[in-house]
Amino acid sequence: ILSKRIVVLSGDGIGPEVCQEAVRALKAVADKFGHEFIFDYQLMGACAIDATGDPLPEATLDACRAADAVLLGAIGDPKYDNNPSAKVRPEQGLLRLRKSLGLYANIRPVTAYDRLLEHSPLKKDRIQGADMLIFRELTGGIYFGEKGRREDGSAYDNCTYSRYEIERVAHRAFQAAEARRGKLTLVDKANVLETSRLWREVVQDLALQYPKVLVDYLFVDNAAMQMILSPKQFDVILTENMFGDIISDEASVIAGSLGLLPSASVGDEAALFEPIHGSYPQAKGKGIANPIATILSAAMLLEHFGLQEEANSVKKAVDNALEQGVLTPELNAKSPYTTEQVGSFVAYGI
Amino acid sequence: ILSKRIVVLSGDGIGPEVCQEAVRALKAVADKFGHEFIFDYQLMGACAIDATGDPLPEATLDACRAADAVLLGAIGDPKYDNNPSAKVRPEQGLLRLRKSLGLYANIRPVTAYDRLLEHSPLKKDRIQGADMLIFRELTGGIYFGEKGRREDGSAYDNCTYSRYEIERVAHRAFQAAEARRGKLTLVDKANVLETSRLWREVVQDLALQYPKVLVDYLFVDNAAMQMILSPKQFDVILTENMFGDIISDEASVIAGSLGLLPSASVGDEAALFEPIHGSYPQAKGKGIANPIATILSAAMLLEHFGLQEEANSVKKAVDNALEQGVLTPELNAKSPYTTEQVGSFVAYGI
Ligand SMILES: CC(C)[C@H](C(=O)O)[C@@H](O)C(=O)O
Ligand SMILES: CC(C)[C@H](C(=O)O)[C@@H](O)C(=O)O
Repeated sequence: ILSKRIVVLSGDGIGPEVCQEAVRALKAVADKFGHEFIFDYQLMGACAIDATGDPLPEATLDACRAADAVLLGAIGDPKYDNNPSAKVRPEQGLLRLRKSLGLYANIRPVTAYDRLLEHSPLKKDRIQGADMLIFRELTGGIYFGEKGRREDGSAYDNCTYSRYEIERVAHRAFQAAEARRGKLTLVDKANVLETSRLWREVVQDLALQYPKVLVDYLFVDNAAMQMILSPKQFDVILTENMFGDIISDEASVIAGSLGLLPSASVGDEAALFEPIHGSYPQAKGKGIANPIATILSAAMLLEHFGLQEEANSVKKAVDNALEQGVLTPELNAKSPYTTEQVGSFVAYGI
Repeated sequence: ILSKRIVVLSGDGIGPEVCQEAVRALKAVADKFGHEFIFDYQLMGACAIDATGDPLPEATLDACRAADAVLLGAIGDPKYDNNPSAKVRPEQGLLRLRKSLGLYANIRPVTAYDRLLEHSPLKKDRIQGADMLIFRELTGGIYFGEKGRREDGSAYDNCTYSRYEIERVAHRAFQAAEARRGKLTLVDKANVLETSRLWREVVQDLALQYPKVLVDYLFVDNAAMQMILSPKQFDVILTENMFGDIISDEASVIAGSLGLLPSASVGDEAALFEPIHGSYPQAKGKGIANPIATILSAAMLLEHFGLQEEANSVKKAVDNALEQGVLTPELNAKSPYTTEQVGSFVAYGI
């Protein structure tokens, strides 16, 4: 019997709706297995800017630091996107949170669900059986480098990687590859970028410590193509922050819906779980947001607590929803269920 | 009747084979329409390193500067890729050439050919009718920024864009959008990167001069997904150097083969034409390389010379090869034709 404190950052757009269903699932797990989960709701993103002027208020960061895990919905609001001169942005909160908690490894499983093959834009024979785990470095690279404007009006963003930043996420990726099918693909642009050459060097060095892992290298432009041409070739993918952002969103098409894909962002001391989709503001309040990605993120959170049986019960309940077609409109246009109906069905099945 | 000097940079791997077929097509055009094309073969890439130690010898650059246009095959050799400490690389030649000739706009048309829909990994209904033109900025950004190592062993790559660098390629993209379906999509990461915010500002400013063009903004991670989910939404795409590299290679899956896609790289004074595929060293000398991308690049070269009728005759001959199934193995596994057979068929049809 465990007692754990979970900070919930519902965020913006559909964030609160999908978080509610993930919390429902976690409560069902607590009930069934006799654990105690304490949920502490905090502000981050556009909602935090609106309330406090800061996308990541001090109180939120403190609560996250004190918690056993963080569950995040989604952040972002279009009112900031087309205003290039906005000084404060929701995304800054998320980036600062990742950095402050030291969440250097973002882990995104992508699987083609047999039941949903028809929903993918890709032909069935290309994706059936695809099953990969993407490790995206999350606290370094160009997102966190110095950036600004020069007097001549030009803008700059600097990308930096240290050997240590690469090693720590690479070790996790190698370990995952050892426990899976034993293949690791580094995605980089080593024919042009110096940081990519450092990534390749470090990975070549570490490979000696993991003799059972077959290491493979792909330039990011080629990887973007291979992801669609033959996704089954991938087992574990390792890549830097920005390439990981692009490649993992692209990979989501394999699953048939962005609304299915969870992620874990972990460091040596903290862990955060969030769906890979965004705040999808157009869908807010309509009951059409798919809660499954967030519910599966909660399952990853349970695994992080060492609660494998509990995690499995969540995943089985989700499988059952897929099986029975208890799905939101993007996956079940004919007789769609609402966000809450899908969440309740899953919670009931736990 | 025209007389033009064309530098041919056959390059590495399959480069020489595909260039030979594009030259064959250009010779057929010269014969039929009574023009004079003088072909000047020069070294660039790994072959130039092997011969001179320099991936872009002075003589090559001089010849390109003096020419009316440049036709390029492909460059790159795996012996450099997995050697992160190699000091001289084939790619440096190409990057220096683009910079020296001021080829700031790389233009890549991507079309789903009706005849080849079945070869795409994407479902037919998603891609049928897709037809886009990608403008990739080619001489700025992180590929050309300062890069190196620091004393602490870390590596860096800097990304910079000036207003002017963005404006000149953006004007070309807006003009193309005006002449097409009137939609321009800027792909950036303005929620995180300062250079992307400058791109968005400049494009918002220029949009006032092109009231007939509808401007749309997508974050690059979302764009990588939209490209597969609904490629028909795109007309003209405008983006910076690295995003363009990734997105345009990804877009190639729509056409069914990388071997079909041409590109033009243009500046105010020079123009270079090349297939978007690489040097594909495993295929070298086997007669299996698809020459169509290079032949269509030659057609873009003819358009650049103002020879629209000539360009059309090349495109019609290519269409005919597609129609008749005179295609290399990746598009015709059952009764494949060789590189030379495809090239001869096209040349004969001109
Ligand atoms: C919101 C944004 C800053 C974020 C990122 O690019 O890291 C998002 O796209 C993601 O992938 O988690
Ligand atoms: C070879 C390499 C430097 C080049 C690039 O990335 O620009 C290539 O991938 C391309 O797209 O033309």
